[in-house]
Amino acid sequence: MLSGMHEHDGPLTRLRRSHEHSVLDLLRKHGPLSRAELGTRSGLSRTTLYDIVAGLVGSGAVVASTPHVEVRKRGRPVEKLSLNPAAGEAVGIDFARRAVHVAAVNFAHEVIGSASEPHTADLSWPERVDIAERLLGSLATVPSDDPARPAGGTGDGPAAVHLDALSAIGVGVVGPITDPGSERAHAQGIDGLPDLLRKRFGVSVLLDNNTRLAALAEAVWGAAADSSDVLYLRLSHGVGGGLVVGGALHRGRYGLSGEFGHVVVDPVGRQCECGGTGCLETRAALDAVLNRYREAGGRAGDLAGFLAAAAAGEPPALQVLERVGHDVGSVLAAVCHAVGPGVIVVGGELAEAGPALLEPVERSLRQHLMPMARHHVDVRRATLGEAGSALGGIALVLHESPLLSHYPRPVSEENA
Amino acid sequence: MLSGMHEHDGPLTRLRRSHEHSVLDLLRKHGPLSRAELGTRSGLSRTTLYDIVAGLVGSGAVVASTPHVEVRKRGRPVEKLSLNPAAGEAVGIDFARRAVHVAAVNFAHEVIGSASEPHTADLSWPERVDIAERLLGSLATVPSDDPARPAGGTGDGPAAVHLDALSAIGVGVVGPITDPGSERAHAQGIDGLPDLLRKRFGVSVLLDNNTRLAALAEAVWGAAADSSDVLYLRLSHGVGGGLVVGGALHRGRYGLSGEFGHVVVDPVGRQCECGGTGCLETRAALDAVLNRYREAGGRAGDLAGFLAAAAAGEPPALQVLERVGHDVGSVLAAVCHAVGPGVIVVGGELAEAGPALLEPVERSLRQHLMPMARHHVDVRRATLGEAGSALGGIALVLHESPLLSHYPRPVSEENA
Repeated sequence: MLSGMHEHDGPLTRLRRSHEHSVLDLLRKHGPLSRAELGTRSGLSRTTLYDIVAGLVGSGAVVASTPHVEVRKRGRPVEKLSLNPAAGEAVGIDFARRAVHVAAVNFAHEVIGSASEPHTADLSWPERVDIAERLLGSLATVPSDDPARPAGGTGDGPAAVHLDALSAIGVGVVGPITDPGSERAHAQGIDGLPDLLRKRFGVSVLLDNNTRLAALAEAVWGAAADSSDVLYLRLSHGVGGGLVVGGALHRGRYGLSGEFGHVVVDPVGRQCECGGTGCLETRAALDAVLNRYREAGGRAGDLAGFLAAAAAGEPPALQVLERVGHDVGSVLAAVCHAVGPGVIVVGGELAEAGPALLEPVERSLRQHLMPMARHHVDVRRATLGEAGSALGGIALVLHESPLLSHYPRPVSEENA
Repeated sequence: MLSGMHEHDGPLTRLRRSHEHSVLDLLRKHGPLSRAELGTRSGLSRTTLYDIVAGLVGSGAVVASTPHVEVRKRGRPVEKLSLNPAAGEAVGIDFARRAVHVAAVNFAHEVIGSASEPHTADLSWPERVDIAERLLGSLATVPSDDPARPAGGTGDGPAAVHLDALSAIGVGVVGPITDPGSERAHAQGIDGLPDLLRKRFGVSVLLDNNTRLAALAEAVWGAAADSSDVLYLRLSHGVGGGLVVGGALHRGRYGLSGEFGHVVVDPVGRQCECGGTGCLETRAALDAVLNRYREAGGRAGDLAGFLAAAAAGEPPALQVLERVGHDVGSVLAAVCHAVGPGVIVVGGELAEAGPALLEPVERSLRQHLMPMARHHVDVRRATLGEAGSALGGIALVLHESPLLSHYPRPVSEENA
């Protein structure tokens, strides 16, 4: 907090700025808050808080609005304060193996939109960045797809990403990352990508593993938005996940964490792509599941066919999901014993099987948990879909960017 | 930080107090620091920092000393600043199943001493608190047992716990805790203990699980003092542990975490005391290990005999440790994939077997880890012994007590 102060400012100005900073920081991280919520979280007295908020609203940095959805049981609706939506935008990009996903929100935490485009696995980084830029541009011409968009926005016209108002980009990539969440972040095979993005968009770039970003997004906007301790598992072409601990992304000492797909479930099982043996991924990744389904006498050969068969209650499909759920539940139980999350979120394409997968997962989880822990965790299906990692990139920017921590600058700074 | 300020103070006083607060907080958490280290961690400018430190030294809240051990390669020794050792003491008590352990440090992070006394498992809480009080009193008559005690202490006489200088007590108890680390903390079977301690010692009491406290202590003062991401496993009458994440104790959403002993290693194995089946504890707790040893044809029936046999290289003892190490390593690998610690510390009585246990643990760990993670974690034996949990209670007080965060009060507060 102190690092945001300038030596040449007078002490009164510095003190006031420190308070303004606290308030802006809370609104940046949490989105719209009432004055009462701001008071509790900032620790400022009522008098000081009202004075600081009045200054910030007067300067245009903060706007006050009254959401239609949230009213007191009696009396007038509670006014919410948020960062001025026009003050800036944050963008997230997910460079998945075979697709680019983008999402954008303004500083009032309103989702401006999201978009995706598939591509072949061998596409070059400059070409993928082209796709990202085109997708972000396309958000300018479509209306917001967020039905929960609160009142007090920038207007009634179509939402738009103003690339010149960008402050930072949060980027998800495949694979383990060193120095995740920072500008020094690096991953195998992404040489040049951060520079490419910085040059193209002219802003700082924060990088992290895309599955971990999906975990953060589910904890901020998705299935676990009510919990600050979340275990996210993604069942897709690979099996991975992430942990949110106390509201922050947990990364591990060397950026290796959330590797649930490489927990061993069968020490004499199949060789895994990671070089290990009998990892969960050898049993619960999409290819492994479809193989099991074929071995069990299933007819349809692709994921859509398998999911349709499961939805129709076809016994081989349900049996396969039962066995996958058993393996997944046993790994989740081990992680729960260690970490004690409040909510488990299951995402990825396989989660589209719904209860046919989640019920066996939950049965196995509770069977493998010590009895006193069995009723202390919820299992839920992910809600953010393929935009999850891009939204997580935005959450990374809103939560962690040191560059944003002094933005937007209140007018009082110029007046000091 | 803001909550420590008083509304009626002038802005200059409040700003100065906020700086003093930052400096005192850093010294409380980290122990002795140089001015350069304080500058880096506080973010204060050199001028401001020197001014604030001069005030704190003048008021007696902070003392400067030059440790004999730490000198620059050239030039004069680096002066370290620490909280005044005479300003207060922190005490930790571990109420284990069959023993009371106590430890005390002064506010300069100098260990005053530690002591233990065994008792029967059915001893009442008032009787256990009597033992704790007597042990703490006994520290007054024995010299410090800490060979690394730095210069600049309170004098050359025997170290002493001044119970009237106590600020808070950190207490470890057996079993899961709700609201751990707070004054509202509660565990099954400890009814009345916090009140009893508060009345006896007249200070606030912070409670946590004693195995988790041992984890914190190993990360602060013990085998993993160089790491802020630590997995601690205790192999004793029970099997448990704790996680330190980013230098802070990880507790889990409901206070259930570090329960490594209840990760299932054999779904068709023995019934566990927790009500589950095939938990690690059914194979790696002391009784289970001694049973395995007897089944393997071992002669000696107790732990001391078993450890002696292992030290002598007796094959049945080594084979049992190999099998225990295999089970332990597989569970540690699962947790490592999820959490990514930098250091694993193994403690408890069974760790006294040394390499005969730790080498099989490490082999199994690396075998079960995905190849790219295999060289990213160290396995070490715990160093703090039976005083670990009591020292962890102290770490809890030094790191977390909101009551200590305004202590010691600088003189400028009275002058405001």
